[in-house]
Amino acid sequence: MSELEGNCLVCQSGGPTAVINASLAGVIEEALNHECIEEIYGGLNGVVGVLNEDLVDLAAESQQVIRLLKSTPGSALGTCRYTFKKEEDLERALEVFKAHDIRYFFYIGDSESMAMIDKLDELAKSEGYEMRILGIPKTINNDISATDHTPGYGSMIKHVATTVREMAADNESIGKGDYVSILEVQGRNSGWIAAGSALAKRRDHPHDAPHIILLPEVVFNPEKFIADVQKVLAREKFCLVVTGEGLVDMNGNYVSAKASSSDAFGHVQLGGAGEFLRGVIEANLGVSARSCKLGVAGRAAAHNASQADSDEAYLAGSAAVIQAVENGKSGKMITLQRAEADSYKCETGWVDLADVPATSKQLPADWINDDGVSMNFPFVKYATPLIQGEVPIVWENGLPVFAKLKGARVDKVLAAYEM
Amino acid sequence: MSELEGNCLVCQSGGPTAVINASLAGVIEEALNHECIEEIYGGLNGVVGVLNEDLVDLAAESQQVIRLLKSTPGSALGTCRYTFKKEEDLERALEVFKAHDIRYFFYIGDSESMAMIDKLDELAKSEGYEMRILGIPKTINNDISATDHTPGYGSMIKHVATTVREMAADNESIGKGDYVSILEVQGRNSGWIAAGSALAKRRDHPHDAPHIILLPEVVFNPEKFIADVQKVLAREKFCLVVTGEGLVDMNGNYVSAKASSSDAFGHVQLGGAGEFLRGVIEANLGVSARSCKLGVAGRAAAHNASQADSDEAYLAGSAAVIQAVENGKSGKMITLQRAEADSYKCETGWVDLADVPATSKQLPADWINDDGVSMNFPFVKYATPLIQGEVPIVWENGLPVFAKLKGARVDKVLAAYEM
Repeated sequence: MSELEGNCLVCQSGGPTAVINASLAGVIEEALNHECIEEIYGGLNGVVGVLNEDLVDLAAESQQVIRLLKSTPGSALGTCRYTFKKEEDLERALEVFKAHDIRYFFYIGDSESMAMIDKLDELAKSEGYEMRILGIPKTINNDISATDHTPGYGSMIKHVATTVREMAADNESIGKGDYVSILEVQGRNSGWIAAGSALAKRRDHPHDAPHIILLPEVVFNPEKFIADVQKVLAREKFCLVVTGEGLVDMNGNYVSAKASSSDAFGHVQLGGAGEFLRGVIEANLGVSARSCKLGVAGRAAAHNASQADSDEAYLAGSAAVIQAVENGKSGKMITLQRAEADSYKCETGWVDLADVPATSKQLPADWINDDGVSMNFPFVKYATPLIQGEVPIVWENGLPVFAKLKGARVDKVLAAYEM
Repeated sequence: MSELEGNCLVCQSGGPTAVINASLAGVIEEALNHECIEEIYGGLNGVVGVLNEDLVDLAAESQQVIRLLKSTPGSALGTCRYTFKKEEDLERALEVFKAHDIRYFFYIGDSESMAMIDKLDELAKSEGYEMRILGIPKTINNDISATDHTPGYGSMIKHVATTVREMAADNESIGKGDYVSILEVQGRNSGWIAAGSALAKRRDHPHDAPHIILLPEVVFNPEKFIADVQKVLAREKFCLVVTGEGLVDMNGNYVSAKASSSDAFGHVQLGGAGEFLRGVIEANLGVSARSCKLGVAGRAAAHNASQADSDEAYLAGSAAVIQAVENGKSGKMITLQRAEADSYKCETGWVDLADVPATSKQLPADWINDDGVSMNFPFVKYATPLIQGEVPIVWENGLPVFAKLKGARVDKVLAAYEM
């Protein structure tokens, strides 16, 4: 098959991960290997940059910067939460592709992004404009179906599990059966991230922290929670609780829903799930409790990213280019698959964009122990390979240095677009 | 001078730091160098372990474990917030010292601890029991006077500044002049930790994050805060705010004081300063705001500890042993001093325990810029050397491994004590 000649465009979308730029580096470096790809462009802020024709010349970036992308958090090209709102958006995107001879379009994003670029792929086909459109999955939430796991998840849970180990060492030295601490992690609708904290337990040490993992998948029962904390405090010096931010009560409401009646200076604003649990403990158990909330600092913690995750993020990016160029694939999302082997090995595959479900991939119920607050061996077996290795960081003057793209603009050739 | 012969006892007190165990390692390894020191004991949970005669044999620990202490968070010997409550406590401690022939007592702690061991030193002298009592400073808060800085502070602000850089990379890729994020750090009565976030700015980039640093030293004015955030959002894609937990209003009250009326399940429990600020922003500016709270996870973040800080913590521990053994010093606290040199070099000194003020060392007012929300060059010059270098971590299966002391108990020889 003769290779399609033209330019390449890559964008990033949705919430950043610690390794989303490794996928970007994978696309850029692989694209350089293929002569059929002439220019390598980046779109600023996801499809918003496509619609506004805000393109930058990625081949003009230094190799140093491209290498540094592998340890840089955030989305180096900027991101967006925009998905096409109207038919005109699709047509405009295609117009931009044609104007810049974009024949390869790579979109790093989540399930919603995949549905969007699928429409774009259909339109290009129906108009007879030959191009390749591929999705590269990313999300800290690990909730994209059709891929074994998602680039971004491994680094997220490596940092969460590291934090739990460190808090445990700290708390154990303080507690005398009277100290509770709570770590709130991201994950509003799924417990994948909170579940990952289970990796902090040493093998065959089920009583290690985290002692209680609260998942959005398990209805929060305050009486059981209090009893669980009491049980841990009777056994251990301290009790470490990990909670996802989206804890729900028996009516399906978030336990920490924001008060809608906050006054001008926010005096009745409620905290998150962690602060809520702190209140529950202090009001009912008369012991001291403290909460920490990783929030966006967690997903951005590139200084503690997983090498395996980073490598796989990069691999997903380069595989997209290879599938598009060498195999002429379009309308697919790259997937990560476990190779059939004695030890963990990750391979890439692909799935039709249309077959990526919009619904979130669920944490398997049978990976949660009967106690509802801990994970069993199948989960640990699944997640452990994803956190292996440490991404080397470039330190300067005691702090990590991150890549900043020069971002040389590609000349606009079209009239402005009204979004 | 002939060296005093006998046993050595070391304890840890107060809140842990990322490097408090490096000081412990410094004491143990230096003590091994001196033949006049026979046994090396550790007291469990600070002076509580002394009073209860809960001593462990530290010389029996493996060299591997002692080495691993240098990268282990928490207080490996356990800690306490107990200070002597009555005259009998002092007498009991001395009785324990005599019973175990303790001639060297090293206490790793904060200002309050220094006042306590000073009394112990006086009692030993007045009773004619020859021994050496030395304090080794530690605290993330950097608020002990009489020392240029405190072991524990450098690692704390290295992690805070790293987190700010990472959040900035993340937030910059999302914001369009409409994104505010808040990082709450420890420091209830002093802004030393929040101030340290200023190191995240690159040299000659005053507009880098953190854009606004809120210090307990500067009265919180909501109108000015809102105006400051608006000014940043007009200039930058995002606004990153760092706040100490102890933000106070014009009446000297904490802005985020806990609601005292929380119900059984904590429904009206307020969050901390970060959540409070989020409320202020969302109610007044109509933009999205998110808060993160490092809490104890910050001080425990040994995976991102400063090598300079760790080295100095170790040095303070070993210097205490050297001063006690070789110079016969007692009733002193080891201090860290900047050597007079072109580049930063840290030396140890000592100060009489009686001269360590109980009051907190203040962040110099003239290190805060006139805008009240940023730090000037003298602060940056002061703090930068403290975050240099990265402590090597032992990783196993993707997570840091920490030291656990075997803790072989020393036989008790006294009757139990009623605390």
